Order: sequence, then C-alpha cells, then structure tokens
Amino acid sequence: MKIISGGVCAAKGFKAGATRCGIKESRTTDDLAIILSECECTAAATYTLNRVKAAPLYVTMEHLEDGVARAIVVNAGNANACAPDGMENARRQAQAAAKLLGVEEDRVLVASTGVIGQRLNIECIEENIGNLKLSDNGSEAASHAILTTDTKVKSVAIEFTVGGKTCHIGGIAKGSGMIHPNMGTMLGFITTDCNITHEMLQIALVESVRRSYNRVSVDGDTSTNDMCIVMANGLAGNEQIDWQNEDFDKFYQALHEVNVRLARMIAGDGEGATKLITCTVKGARSEEAAERLAKAVCASSLVKAAMFGADANWGRVLCAMGYSKAPFRPEYVTVSFSSSVGTVMVCDHGYGLDFDEDLAKQILLEEEVNIDVELYEGEEKATCWGCDLTYDYVKINGDYRT
Amino acid sequence: MKIISGGVCAAKGFKAGATRCGIKESRTTDDLAIILSECECTAAATYTLNRVKAAPLYVTMEHLEDGVARAIVVNAGNANACAPDGMENARRQAQAAAKLLGVEEDRVLVASTGVIGQRLNIECIEENIGNLKLSDNGSEAASHAILTTDTKVKSVAIEFTVGGKTCHIGGIAKGSGMIHPNMGTMLGFITTDCNITHEMLQIALVESVRRSYNRVSVDGDTSTNDMCIVMANGLAGNEQIDWQNEDFDKFYQALHEVNVRLARMIAGDGEGATKLITCTVKGARSEEAAERLAKAVCASSLVKAAMFGADANWGRVLCAMGYSKAPFRPEYVTVSFSSSVGTVMVCDHGYGLDFDEDLAKQILLEEEVNIDVELYEGEEKATCWGCDLTYDYVKINGDYRT
Repeated sequence: MKIISGGVCAAKGFKAGATRCGIKESRTTDDLAIILSECECTAAATYTLNRVKAAPLYVTMEHLEDGVARAIVVNAGNANACAPDGMENARRQAQAAAKLLGVEEDRVLVASTGVIGQRLNIECIEENIGNLKLSDNGSEAASHAILTTDTKVKSVAIEFTVGGKTCHIGGIAKGSGMIHPNMGTMLGFITTDCNITHEMLQIALVESVRRSYNRVSVDGDTSTNDMCIVMANGLAGNEQIDWQNEDFDKFYQALHEVNVRLARMIAGDGEGATKLITCTVKGARSEEAAERLAKAVCASSLVKAAMFGADANWGRVLCAMGYSKAPFRPEYVTVSFSSSVGTVMVCDHGYGLDFDEDLAKQILLEEEVNIDVELYEGEEKATCWGCDLTYDYVKINGDYRT
Repeated sequence: MKIISGGVCAAKGFKAGATRCGIKESRTTDDLAIILSECECTAAATYTLNRVKAAPLYVTMEHLEDGVARAIVVNAGNANACAPDGMENARRQAQAAAKLLGVEEDRVLVASTGVIGQRLNIECIEENIGNLKLSDNGSEAASHAILTTDTKVKSVAIEFTVGGKTCHIGGIAKGSGMIHPNMGTMLGFITTDCNITHEMLQIALVESVRRSYNRVSVDGDTSTNDMCIVMANGLAGNEQIDWQNEDFDKFYQALHEVNVRLARMIAGDGEGATKLITCTVKGARSEEAAERLAKAVCASSLVKAAMFGADANWGRVLCAMGYSKAPFRPEYVTVSFSSSVGTVMVCDHGYGLDFDEDLAKQILLEEEVNIDVELYEGEEKATCWGCDLTYDYVKINGDYRT
C-alpha cells in the first residue's frame, strides 16, 4: 500500500472537473464539481442520521437503489435543505449533469453543501454547467469547488494490490463546521478501480465510516447534508470481490486508510481550528466504550478551549469521560498529553500528578496534540479526532449567512 | 405568592455568612460561605450523574442519609474533585464548620466549586473559618462567596401561604461554565420555613430540578460537582406536609418558582454570555420529546454562535432538532424568533419564509431572546434555557487555571 497523487482521478477511468455557476453571489471561486467514471460502477453510500435531511440525499438514495452509478454532481454555497422546491431542484441538478455527460439521469448522484433554508439557484447551474471541463487531472479543481469554510483541500490516494492486480483508490472531502457525524459523514467522495460487488462495497464503507468520519467532532452539530459515496468501476481487472475473503480485507484496508486520512484532515481543519486533537482511549472493556469516552473528550467545549489555550487542564478530560455514559473506573485512569515535543503524564489512578507545567505547555502548543487515556480494564481501544475551540469559530459562525 | 428579598435568610430561623480563607491565592474576595438553621431541618438533595463525582458530594450523601441537616458549608476556588486527600479534606471541612457552629458533624452538608484535580487547601479553611460571622442578612455575602466565573449574584425569595400560615422560601445559586446538568444541577441552596417531611421534600425537589436546572445548558459539559440542596426547618408552623395534597402543590409551586428563576439567571450568566436564550417547543406528542428538542437547540454551538451574531439562521434550529433523537415531522414545523422588540416567523411547515431581516436583527440584538417552535403533533410542551457562544467563552476557558 503506498500513497500516490491524483485524488479521485487516481483510479483508472475516472475524470473530474469544476466550474463557477454563481450559486452564492459573494463566492468568487468554483462552486460546482463533477466526478465521472467512463463505465458503470458499483456504488455505496452512507447518509446523515439527522431527521432533517437535505433533498439531494433523497435523490441520491433513489438513484442508488440498484447500487449502480456513473457520476456525482456536487455544489457548494447552498445545502438545498429545508429549501423551497428542494426535491425538484435536486432532480434538475442530476438532469443537468446527465445531459452534459450523456448518461442516464438515475446514474448521477447529487450532493450539496452550504446554507440551509434558502432556495437553490438551479437556473444558474443549468446555464453554466456547460463550462465544466472534465479531465484526468481534474481532482484538484473538484476538491477546491466542494469547500465552504474549509481552509485546506482534503485529498488522498493510495495504490494497493488485490489478487496480483494493481488497484487504486482515492478520495476528496469537505468538512469544517456542523461536524459531528452520526453513521453518516461530512461530504466524502471516493473512487476506485477495484472490482467489487455493490454488497461488499456497502459493507466495507459502513464499517470504515463508523471508524473514521464518525469518530470526528468539530462542534457537536450533526449536519443535514452528510454523505459519503464510494464508486468502484472494476477497471483494475482483479477477480471480482464478492465475499469477505482476503481480497476484501486488502480492499478494506486501503479504503479505511483513505477514510481515516480524510477524517483527520477534516478534524484538523475544523472551523476556526488551530490544531488537530487526537484522543485515544486504551484498556477498555469494549471498543464501543472506548469510542464513547474518546468522542466525549474530543467534543467537550471545555477541553477544546483548554487545548486552544495550551492549558493542560486534564480535569476537563476526566469530567468529559464521566458524563459520556460509558462505564469506567475513575480511580484506575491515567491521562497523558503528547506531541512531537514529548509526553507528559498528568493524571495517575484518577489523581493529579505534580507534572512539569512548562513541558506540558510546549507539548500543547504544537499543531497536532494527542490525549492518551489508559483505563486498565480490558484490551479494547478507539481513537477519535477533533480540534480546538477558538475565537475564529465564534467569528465564523456569528455571521455565516452574510 | 410574592417575590421578597432576603435570599436564603428570607425563611424564619436561617442565618448565613461568608469570609475569605485564601483557597485560591489569586482570588481576593470571600471564598467560604455557611448557611445555618437555628433548629433541625428536613433536607433533600440532587447530585450530578457524572461518573466522576467530587468528594464533598459523597460526604453530603452520607450526612443526608437520615434526611436531617442543620447547615451547609461551601467553598469556591477548588472543586475538591479528583484531588489528593479529597474525602479526608471534605470531612475536615464539615468538622471545621461543625465546631464553629456547635452542631454535630453529620448535620453539616458540604459543597465545593472551582478547579478540578488540585488538593484543597483545607488548612487555610481551618485557620480562617473562625472569622466567618453569621447573620439574618448574610445571604448576599454568601451568594457572592460561592461564585467563580459568574458575573452576577443569583438569589431569589418568595412568600407563600400553606394551610393559612405564611411560609417563605429562598435560594442562591452559582452557574457559569461546565453547565449541562443531568438530573443534578449546578450549586443551588434553598431554605424554607415550611413544615414538610423529608420524603415530600425529596419528591418536590427531584420533580422541580428536572424541569428547571436540568433544562439549562451553557456548554454541554456536565460538572463533577453539581448539587442542589433544600433545607426546611418548619418554623412557619403550618401543619406538616406528609403527602401530595393541596398544601404540597402550593409548596411545590413556590419551590419551582425559585428554581426556575435561579435556572434562568444561571443560563443568562453563562460563561461569556451576552444574552439569555429561551427555547420553547409546543405541540409535541410528549413532554420528553419537547424537552429533548428544546435542549438540543439551546445546546447547539452553531445556534449559540448565530445568536451571538444576532443572525436569524433558523436552519441551525431545525438541524439541531433533527439530531436530537426526538421524533417530529420537519414538514409540519414552524419557527419564530421573539423578544421585547417583536416577533418574526422565519420557517413555516419546514420551509424558509421571506421574512424581514432588519426586524429579525433587531429582535435578536436584545438581551433576552425566545426561539419558539410549534410541532403541530400534540398537546405537550417544554421550555429550556441557554446563552450565546461568544469570544469571551473561549477566552475564559482557554486559560482558566491561571
């Protein structure tokens, strides 16, 4: 398995591109992206569990009923959620892309991101989609076009081997705010040339999403538009993966590596964030308990504010674990902070240690900080990701609509 | 029922006072308070459900096993949670107060608030507690001494009638950060001269706390030290309330009025807050569903940041309801914002209205803002309270320990 370039165009037979339609007037950059496979793909998706779902999610669910797709069309600048004419406009978005690409409408999946509750300007998409040029190296343009308040592009690609054949898998994502996925995800689009059935693809995606995007929290708000799609066109020529054999495991590892890397990028680039927080809970009785504890730590406003201030206020870590509803014995717990600068243990068996405050400060001033918790109760563990809570988060969200 | 002055000294036979012990060196104001009844009281309490509980909670639980108490001793500046010698120091705190007051140690209840994980300086309490003077008008001093990052004193008292006898009930509280109570509360201390059994007092307290403090969220973090205590000394001379009769209802109404008023004060004075947010969800199938929905709205970082920016971003309200896990039909919902300036409906049947943005801005610039949601599904409703998310919240919590 090795990291390569190319994003969603790294796999054979995939093209991508982007253009500016003017969906949100104040936005001067591209706001519409398309990812296309030259042949039919098996495809799988996970969606937000928010009871309020955006219209494009319903259209994508319909179009994916047979597990087959050719393309994804994504716009930024408007979420098309709780919006007038939502379903009609999401369908028109698929139709416009289908016409441009010369494919059937139900082979096109739709995703949107942006403000909730305002009508999508579908007319400007229909007028301008013709300017969108697809190419083998269009992933970067597409990865920029899907961003909103993100400050960095999220893209990764991997080369791996299945049954003697070289396969490729790549993805792009957007995150930033309203990030606390629940069995769905932020927007994530993955392409692969690996040959795999729809059923196996869906199993791999659900399992991997659970352990990657669903372990990220930026602000505890689960979006109405979360969606992760994977398309597999089979052009790598490997024997089709149709059960959970060794080939499936290899594919899963590559897919999961892509998803974890994108998830970490999303956490580190959360709205207003200055650093990536990684919390690992070890020694738990179950993976679920470890995950709940780690997620409560990453989602705690007080832990996040302390990380912004590089303050080794470990009491807030224990406090967040305490209200997570996961079982653990506070009197067993150790807590350490670490980064590239070093490691400092701050809590042993539930009590504070007399630690080196200067070293702790240096550790916490880094851009990637780890909070490591050991429960001494079992063998299970889980890692979750988040970011710090900053003035800029408040600034960005105090007046997002203007 | 009428509002009176006097706080925890409004009820007959209660005295209070405060002094400075120097528990936290940088604090120059009083940090120790005592509330005393001249005779024995029935007493009831609720505690945080956080799995990590501070030592004083365990001592208070022990001392309340027989439902009888005389006094409460409270310190600010140190939570005595996850702290070395925690249990021993909480006991010494009760002993020091008992000695000063000339009462049995197990008649003294203990509460603490402040930083987690550092040893309580019990020696300075033992040395200085002798300076504490109790008086009939000592409630104000006590209400100041229990504050941490609070900016305002929280105090209320009410006169009411039970069985022809005039009764009084009053309370003081502290809130500010780490506020998201779960069947417990922030620190709240209530005194009354009403004659009521321990059992009835406990029933009334649990029911009222569920509908007052437990409906407040400042930052989603449930503290290790939450506790609400009510002491009733019976000096009003009413016939003892020993079952849920009409007298109980009158007492409950007075107690609940005190708790709701304190809860609102706590929400409006949340860390860094500039305004009180009140979310009422009506037309629900159950009170529990209404409460979940209203609480999700009040706890959403994105809603809170929008309120700070006076931005009528109602999509975030619907989004928060959507992930609350309570049932409702988005396509039925209406959402309005209101304040003393007026009312504006922003969402009707799940879709955005073309509302007056200038009026909405004026409404949201007020210090008390209401978010009113109608579900059109049933007859039940619930109200929850919160505050906006501001730069100052981040500032206060970025470096709280220093």
